[in-house]
Amino acid sequence: MYQTYATASSPDPVADRVGLIRALLVKEKLDAFLVPRADEHQGEYVPPSAERLKWLTGFSGSAGLAAITRKHAALFVDGRYTVQSRVETDAELFEFPGIARPKLASWLNDKLAKGATIGFDPWLHTAGEIARLEEAVSAKGIKLKPVAKNLVDKAWGQERPAPPVRRIEPHPLKYAGQTANEKIAHLQKLLKEQGQDAAILTLPDSICWAFNIRGSDVAHNPVVLAFAVLPASGKPELFVAPGKLDKAARAHLEPIVKLQEPSALKERVAALAKTKKRVRLDSETAAWWFARALGGPKGFVRGTDPCIALKAIKNAIEIKGARAAHVRDGTAMVRTLAWLDREVANGGLDEIAAVKQLEAFRAETGALKEISFDTISGSGPNGAIVHYRVSEKTNRRLEAGELFLIDSGAQYQDGTTDITRTVAIGTPSEEMRERYTLVLKGHIAIATARFPKGTRGIDLDPFARRALWEKGLDYDHGTGHGVGSYLSVHEGPQSISRAGMAELQPGMICSNEPGYYKEGAYGIRIENLVLVTPAETLDGGDRPVMGFETLTLVPMDRRLIVKELLTAAEIYWIDAYHARVAEVLSPGLDALTRAWLQEATAPV
Amino acid sequence: MYQTYATASSPDPVADRVGLIRALLVKEKLDAFLVPRADEHQGEYVPPSAERLKWLTGFSGSAGLAAITRKHAALFVDGRYTVQSRVETDAELFEFPGIARPKLASWLNDKLAKGATIGFDPWLHTAGEIARLEEAVSAKGIKLKPVAKNLVDKAWGQERPAPPVRRIEPHPLKYAGQTANEKIAHLQKLLKEQGQDAAILTLPDSICWAFNIRGSDVAHNPVVLAFAVLPASGKPELFVAPGKLDKAARAHLEPIVKLQEPSALKERVAALAKTKKRVRLDSETAAWWFARALGGPKGFVRGTDPCIALKAIKNAIEIKGARAAHVRDGTAMVRTLAWLDREVANGGLDEIAAVKQLEAFRAETGALKEISFDTISGSGPNGAIVHYRVSEKTNRRLEAGELFLIDSGAQYQDGTTDITRTVAIGTPSEEMRERYTLVLKGHIAIATARFPKGTRGIDLDPFARRALWEKGLDYDHGTGHGVGSYLSVHEGPQSISRAGMAELQPGMICSNEPGYYKEGAYGIRIENLVLVTPAETLDGGDRPVMGFETLTLVPMDRRLIVKELLTAAEIYWIDAYHARVAEVLSPGLDALTRAWLQEATAPV
Repeated sequence: MYQTYATASSPDPVADRVGLIRALLVKEKLDAFLVPRADEHQGEYVPPSAERLKWLTGFSGSAGLAAITRKHAALFVDGRYTVQSRVETDAELFEFPGIARPKLASWLNDKLAKGATIGFDPWLHTAGEIARLEEAVSAKGIKLKPVAKNLVDKAWGQERPAPPVRRIEPHPLKYAGQTANEKIAHLQKLLKEQGQDAAILTLPDSICWAFNIRGSDVAHNPVVLAFAVLPASGKPELFVAPGKLDKAARAHLEPIVKLQEPSALKERVAALAKTKKRVRLDSETAAWWFARALGGPKGFVRGTDPCIALKAIKNAIEIKGARAAHVRDGTAMVRTLAWLDREVANGGLDEIAAVKQLEAFRAETGALKEISFDTISGSGPNGAIVHYRVSEKTNRRLEAGELFLIDSGAQYQDGTTDITRTVAIGTPSEEMRERYTLVLKGHIAIATARFPKGTRGIDLDPFARRALWEKGLDYDHGTGHGVGSYLSVHEGPQSISRAGMAELQPGMICSNEPGYYKEGAYGIRIENLVLVTPAETLDGGDRPVMGFETLTLVPMDRRLIVKELLTAAEIYWIDAYHARVAEVLSPGLDALTRAWLQEATAPV
Repeated sequence: MYQTYATASSPDPVADRVGLIRALLVKEKLDAFLVPRADEHQGEYVPPSAERLKWLTGFSGSAGLAAITRKHAALFVDGRYTVQSRVETDAELFEFPGIARPKLASWLNDKLAKGATIGFDPWLHTAGEIARLEEAVSAKGIKLKPVAKNLVDKAWGQERPAPPVRRIEPHPLKYAGQTANEKIAHLQKLLKEQGQDAAILTLPDSICWAFNIRGSDVAHNPVVLAFAVLPASGKPELFVAPGKLDKAARAHLEPIVKLQEPSALKERVAALAKTKKRVRLDSETAAWWFARALGGPKGFVRGTDPCIALKAIKNAIEIKGARAAHVRDGTAMVRTLAWLDREVANGGLDEIAAVKQLEAFRAETGALKEISFDTISGSGPNGAIVHYRVSEKTNRRLEAGELFLIDSGAQYQDGTTDITRTVAIGTPSEEMRERYTLVLKGHIAIATARFPKGTRGIDLDPFARRALWEKGLDYDHGTGHGVGSYLSVHEGPQSISRAGMAELQPGMICSNEPGYYKEGAYGIRIENLVLVTPAETLDGGDRPVMGFETLTLVPMDRRLIVKELLTAAEIYWIDAYHARVAEVLSPGLDALTRAWLQEATAPV
């Protein structure tokens, strides 16, 4: 239904395609061309028409960049994709220097001659990205040049899929909790306060949030690909393909925005530049094209997309929706885990079967719009691959004595979910149980944290790691990301991580997902979504502290908990959490699942 | 001996002095002048000749800035000095907008007319500071203009003390652990690797570290005020007043550096600028004068002072020295605490008496060179003033039922110490004991932390706060600062704080000093110095982890510990720490003190 299991792509045509790009380099008098995994909106997911990196290199990961020179080629990916990138592309043809941000410039300086010219698509790189690259290659006299048409698009030709034109759905007030007009008024007030005449919005989830619309232009994130110009007063303009607008969408949008053809954007931005308006642009998320069209660095006011901070703080209706979505999603997950225990006993279960069953139970809720990302369903050593995606080729049976990790989520109109559970198949080893318990201690340390105003995600992240650190263990990912309300499953500005500098504020939703991975053996991750609660003054306390309300309601595998490693407070938390899960979910379950849940939530 | 208790200054002459500056503003066609609490080296302590802010405003704090316009005046200080600044200066004359960094520009924009000119001393502000201020007032056409002679110096006239000319002492290899030539070679290798032809050194502690010298030009930090030019190859040049060089100093320095008169600096920097050498300058610590002399922002390579990172990692000899210094200092502290308990019983003890006795015991070690800062000796409500400095006026008796906080340190040739203890006078309240125990839990959480490579101080700071946060409590200062080796008691780059982005590395020394302050009632702080230990792979662990060795050896007040609030692991730590303190210090103590220590270190 929502996920496919075919192996994504093949390295076979890569050499030919790189050859086509090199021929174009000669023709266009360029020495190199950059192919990022990005579209014009810099979202996490891109439509098939923007899968240029995958078409060219075969690499299907969600982040990366290829640089093609006349003689050399490199594929830049992060640690998640080290293995995958080498398998999917033609590894004879490409070098793999690491992550583009720190490595691209030095690679280009190394491979290119003095005074060389690097071509790039002005729509696929942010203004900040190009500015940094320009500076880093300037010492060697290397220049960057925007191309009129992307070289990949020229080479791809007729076979390139058309850009998506999917129907826009109004996002009803009963889920949004605030009218688009209220949001626009709030944004306009902020612009005025900061002396700005307009803001350009380029992020699809910002636009969807501001105007209370949703869509399906890309996978998993229910967004509409569009641009908007938001003036400090007056009607915003939404630049969107007319094919996305049916009668209902027009009826919703026309009172709120001025609908414009995408082709009108160029002229509109040029007009803004001409009138010397103070235009706010987020140079870290907006395409370089906008910065240039506004007249370069001095032509705009640098400022983060003003929707980001507002969108992150869920209103009372969105919070109510999130709670309801988690009860519904918890039911589907509990049915899946109960089914899993039964099927494991019968033998023959594999990773794909688990994904399909979970999707089926979610669909049976009647409210599922989409899954919020491709389910990570990893048994045994596959569980140790943090961003594993199961395919027919990698599919494994769930074997006794192994761990099974399942990380999934759903898009419901009232909320987005994201949950990971790790379960024992057969009898787990003592090492598995101990390490599961250390991860659980980290999870509980986040769930129970209290913290004053001003605390940032970076301040909480170490709580999730302390128990692991004490044993010389750790995990190489953040502890939590922000989550949208029927929007992106990864959203900012907050994160509980080494880089989480945004202050946590009541109403923000984050994941709480510490883990532990033993390469080639097993993976452990325990993930709930949590809501930042309002600051309250505790008895005897002298400054108000916030905390977290755990939204996710699914038991954690008691068979993996070593009670002796937990403190009394930790045992209290897990027992209380399980009691709450049983109490809330039991009424909505069939008898068989209810019996399973009762056992799964008994005191540890 | 080392500390005075007179009230530092008086607001009486402030109005006249501000009047003198205003007359000079008119004469020099300026609209404002800036008076920072800084000298040419941007150190924490400045010599009396550079106490311009204090002379002008009466404010004696260690950080601040005054801005004087023809009609208005403002004194910018941070939260530590909110109360003190208003008492010390003429509060009718000055506004107090807050901290200069965020507030100065808007205050100037507010008070000055379009196109106004602000005068500043090119030697007293960093290049970064002036660049940021220039940008922030540029929208109003306000300009910054360096003055040829500081207006305060003109007004101050004959009474201004002469700059210090104190004897330079060679820092022997048996304490430094590495010759100056080795350090210079290391620094030069770094410069070459980074393609730099020279670095300008402006920080006194960097210069003292690099050339193995010490001095007494300012209070408490045994540094020499000097500048240096370090070429990528060849002999460094040290610009220092000849009066500071006796025969021993010359004998030590001449083989290492080329000694230059301070007056030769201008020409030398001009020559560097002329030859287009790639000169490294730390624009956040070097005076604006250097940046301009090198030809402005494009005339130098921005780079942190290269000594900072090397100096922070203590070598084996420095570590051995630190341990020895802490045994010696622990003895003096234990004698003081034992004496205090006896004297309290006799009554009549006050804050100044405690400082004097501690100084006397430290002096009796025969190794004391200086105290490392003015002792904070606060009883009752004075303990709640984080940066309290006792004077004849504020001196309080130690009363039964109160807490007494004493934060002090010593400069020995083998190491610098910094220790805080909080002790009960008479019977403490239950609230005091509970909160002391929460602070102790935070202290232990740092002392026992294990952490992998890449961990920064920012990642550990929350461990010290968690127990307080859980009760709705916190403290408004960092948990730890770096400490020099017979150098500055506050040194970077590392800190355990909200801003501590430098990675912790084996050999770094930090303070571990969580606290709790109840305004108007009492203050609690427990401070030890800790040494980052080498990463080791634990049994069953899969990545090496560092930890801390506690250097400070002084008991914590058992009368203030609520055992029931501690975990078994915490009780184990405090008992083991106390056993170690008793074992190491007892042999060096007189019988009376030894008996006291035995009781003070009994298991809790």
